[in-house]
Amino acid sequence: MSGYTPGEQPEAPGLIKLNTNENPYPPSPRVQEAVASLGEERLRLYPSPGAGPLRRKAADVYGRSPANILIGNGSDDLLAICMRVAVDEGATVAYPVPTYSLYPTLTDIARARAVEIPSSDGDETLADRLVAAEAALTFVCSPNPPKGSLVAADVIAGVAEGSAGLVVADEAYGDFADLNTLDLLDEHPNLVVVRSLSKSFSLAGLRLGLAFASEQLIHEMYKVKDSYNVSSVAIAAGVAALDDLGWMQANVARIRSTRDKCVSRLRRSGYEIPDSHANFFWLEHPGRPGEELYGHLRSEGILVRYFDTPELRGGIRVTVGTDSEMSALQEALAPLAPR
Amino acid sequence: MSGYTPGEQPEAPGLIKLNTNENPYPPSPRVQEAVASLGEERLRLYPSPGAGPLRRKAADVYGRSPANILIGNGSDDLLAICMRVAVDEGATVAYPVPTYSLYPTLTDIARARAVEIPSSDGDETLADRLVAAEAALTFVCSPNPPKGSLVAADVIAGVAEGSAGLVVADEAYGDFADLNTLDLLDEHPNLVVVRSLSKSFSLAGLRLGLAFASEQLIHEMYKVKDSYNVSSVAIAAGVAALDDLGWMQANVARIRSTRDKCVSRLRRSGYEIPDSHANFFWLEHPGRPGEELYGHLRSEGILVRYFDTPELRGGIRVTVGTDSEMSALQEALAPLAPR
Repeated sequence: MSGYTPGEQPEAPGLIKLNTNENPYPPSPRVQEAVASLGEERLRLYPSPGAGPLRRKAADVYGRSPANILIGNGSDDLLAICMRVAVDEGATVAYPVPTYSLYPTLTDIARARAVEIPSSDGDETLADRLVAAEAALTFVCSPNPPKGSLVAADVIAGVAEGSAGLVVADEAYGDFADLNTLDLLDEHPNLVVVRSLSKSFSLAGLRLGLAFASEQLIHEMYKVKDSYNVSSVAIAAGVAALDDLGWMQANVARIRSTRDKCVSRLRRSGYEIPDSHANFFWLEHPGRPGEELYGHLRSEGILVRYFDTPELRGGIRVTVGTDSEMSALQEALAPLAPR
Repeated sequence: MSGYTPGEQPEAPGLIKLNTNENPYPPSPRVQEAVASLGEERLRLYPSPGAGPLRRKAADVYGRSPANILIGNGSDDLLAICMRVAVDEGATVAYPVPTYSLYPTLTDIARARAVEIPSSDGDETLADRLVAAEAALTFVCSPNPPKGSLVAADVIAGVAEGSAGLVVADEAYGDFADLNTLDLLDEHPNLVVVRSLSKSFSLAGLRLGLAFASEQLIHEMYKVKDSYNVSSVAIAAGVAALDDLGWMQANVARIRSTRDKCVSRLRRSGYEIPDSHANFFWLEHPGRPGEELYGHLRSEGILVRYFDTPELRGGIRVTVGTDSEMSALQEALAPLAPR
């Protein structure tokens, strides 16, 4: 197997980094205060195995019980935990494609079989086709990379309803959209909703994810997680971040506004961009392949994400940065503009 | 399956905590400086996927190449990664018992079969019996909990030599002993040596472990780890900790000295304590079971570790704290002293 290929984290400074969907704005100042004032004792002693303080804070913020919540070392940790709970060797894992490129890697690691369901925005048969795969675990990412399309809550409900296996709604980008999937949890004990603090809360460097599910499912997930999977620093920082929801929401609003302005302008100059509900968008040029766009932007000091696969060679994924970063992107793309 | 049971992390203050093998001394001040001065950008951006700066620092400190090192979210993360690399469903995992109680849990999670080899200090047939298990993965923990006994390097070399599978030398407590297992790596491409920064470096709250192995094996491990398994905070703190080895070594020397004094005194009053090479020791009373010792100490405000298993009901595991904490332990045990 080949392993997952994360986006570049260049150590050289100076590049405009629009390649790994990070938030261009800093996290809440309360987070840095929490990290800086942690105290030696929190470093010296083991953390709460269940990340207790953060679990209780998340329960409070999201109107759930702590027993319905599991904290992960990033949402990737939670996705891997879901795999361990539900997927035996040789079992089936289903997901719509294109999507988050970690799912096939997780499937390989579990020595399971991937059933990839080609899908595009507004696909009305998606739920039925996913259910028909009879998978031990089904991933549905929404908003879905690399295009930022939404999968409607009733599609996710339909998959959970029709599946005997686990259904994971991966909402790493959920805070950028208007979602109500958490409301489905009471009716679907086989559904897990996974969120990340990496993007909307500007905490990619800290590794924090949240899983919401039925008490029974969280209990099973708890048993197969690493004993102390979340550090004391991350617990304290996560509590501080959730304590300042307004900060995150203001940044999300700015990013959405920047995205919409930038997408409109690029569309006007002939670039093809599907509607996005996330902090990134997909861009194609009618006459130039993605690799050329990637290379051109790189030579202009702008890093975007290019996926060298047959389905995705036609375009690039662009993270939404600040207004000035997006202006730089538009300037850099202007010489190639289709019109 | 039942999952791993970590030691208590009581949220109530005031207890003397000798139950989870934490270091009683704070980490190097350089660690706290590194954490406090991390900067918002390191929180906002993804960490180096391979924890590059820490890998290079560890390579420098331990005289290896970065390609021979993998950084984990605690050494438990690295043990789980070893399982993913080597153990298919139904395969065999072997280890001497008693030992770290996570191994059976990891084996359960992998739906593999555990072969437990009863062993005690100075067991000359151990290598042969482990090799005879023909395991896909063999764990050898040294110093080994709960008693702190050493497994000699030539035993580990013998297991690696005789095994077609992976051999994991778990040296989470290695800094408290005089070990030379890293020297074995050049000759044994199937050997992984795992260290932890939790105990000797006083960083249990931060989650950091180091794995050393052949380049090929590290490459395989890298492919099945979580994409960003170590946070930017942990990377920076780990670099600072390794930059101040003298701090760790001084604390280790104090702990060893405290341990030896305390063990001598308790032995003189009739308690039975095998030699320990770690920051904990095993204590038995000739006439009272472990549960009674645990309960008595708890009522005196001292928390130790009691394992409710047939093999370990006879005693308790005591973490070595400060001199004054160990004096409190001795006082609390005095009324029950066998002589």
